[in-house]
Amino acid sequence: MKDHTVTAFDIELRQLAQSIAEMGALARQAIVIATAALGAPAPALADEAEVIDRQVDRLQRAVEEAGILLIARRQPVAFDLREVLSTLRIANDLERIGDLAGNIATRVAALGETATPQSLALSLQGLASRVIERLDLVLAAFRVRDPAQALEIWSSDGSVKDLYTTVFRSVLTYMMEDPRHISSCAQLVFVAKNLERIGDHVSNIAESVYYAATGDQLDDVRRDTEAVTDVEAVAAS
Amino acid sequence: MKDHTVTAFDIELRQLAQSIAEMGALARQAIVIATAALGAPAPALADEAEVIDRQVDRLQRAVEEAGILLIARRQPVAFDLREVLSTLRIANDLERIGDLAGNIATRVAALGETATPQSLALSLQGLASRVIERLDLVLAAFRVRDPAQALEIWSSDGSVKDLYTTVFRSVLTYMMEDPRHISSCAQLVFVAKNLERIGDHVSNIAESVYYAATGDQLDDVRRDTEAVTDVEAVAAS
Repeated sequence: MKDHTVTAFDIELRQLAQSIAEMGALARQAIVIATAALGAPAPALADEAEVIDRQVDRLQRAVEEAGILLIARRQPVAFDLREVLSTLRIANDLERIGDLAGNIATRVAALGETATPQSLALSLQGLASRVIERLDLVLAAFRVRDPAQALEIWSSDGSVKDLYTTVFRSVLTYMMEDPRHISSCAQLVFVAKNLERIGDHVSNIAESVYYAATGDQLDDVRRDTEAVTDVEAVAAS
Repeated sequence: MKDHTVTAFDIELRQLAQSIAEMGALARQAIVIATAALGAPAPALADEAEVIDRQVDRLQRAVEEAGILLIARRQPVAFDLREVLSTLRIANDLERIGDLAGNIATRVAALGETATPQSLALSLQGLASRVIERLDLVLAAFRVRDPAQALEIWSSDGSVKDLYTTVFRSVLTYMMEDPRHISSCAQLVFVAKNLERIGDHVSNIAESVYYAATGDQLDDVRRDTEAVTDVEAVAAS
């Protein structure tokens, strides 16, 4: 009877992990779609990202419901409970990534007709690529439950912050050169900020993978995801 | 025996609710401190907000641990499980509010020496007041588990969005008038955005209060907290 219960739990847990993989793939696709159109007209962009965002939202709801049911029915303890709770947290972070990608898409779509200079578009896409790369790594770390890999991703968060700071300064400089760019550049500032925030959620996922595998919380300093890197950037310039 | 177990659960749940009340009071204080200094020099501001933010973070960790232990040991189902899960979610939103207030404080402190025009400072404080008022209401709704009040808060979210849009436009206008203000105004844009985001977390808390009391999720459209109200504002102007 006990063996049967354990197996049923494992099967349900594997289904949750499968949903996380799906959510990850969708969230990734949303970021790619949202940022690929930077500097180019893209009328259907916001709709496309919206459709994906809704799928991610639906999956998050499904994971949450299934996870809560799993806790209520199987009443897991220790390692197993940690696994479920980490999965719920990861689903939450992926849902937020989907939201942020949708937000970027709306902003990029609104910019469609105005000219985003090629150099800024390239910087923003560089930031997006870095973030996507890290999302791929953390989803891989989750797949094989690799705490060392999770720790490495979590520790190298600074590379995203540095890139963000560089992009932020470029956008401000462009604004200063010609005040007619201010409205459109305000949107680019949010695009950059949202990419940085997606990077923060990737780090949160790394923390959850690490916690599930080891039971240890990574230093809570990083949980403070509201970075103010740009304040320092401006102060230093 | 059963009565004893139920009582122990109730006591622990009441302790969680007490922690939520403390977190709420601290998060509120952090917003007040962070925004009161707008347009005035405030050297110790960022440190003060940082201290409060850390307290909120610690409380959130404590609530999370206690909540998980509560689920694991008492294995609540149905209504009781919903209560615990809602409390965990609310703690999470309050932790995010603390983070955002800390972020605002850092930005306001960085602006200290530069002049924020009185009119913009007043607009931003008006936005902050609206958000604080709504935070008070939602904490009261949580205290007495009032789903009707929660629903009302959730439904009137638009008043924060409208105020944010107005403030956002004023900041952009000020930037356009004199490009020397661009760096400092970029910070004010983030301050306004963060206040709007605090408002989103207040709405999330209203959702959780409603869910705990009724078992129903409010329309998931609002869960999409990444609003792009400013895109519409700029497009319309």
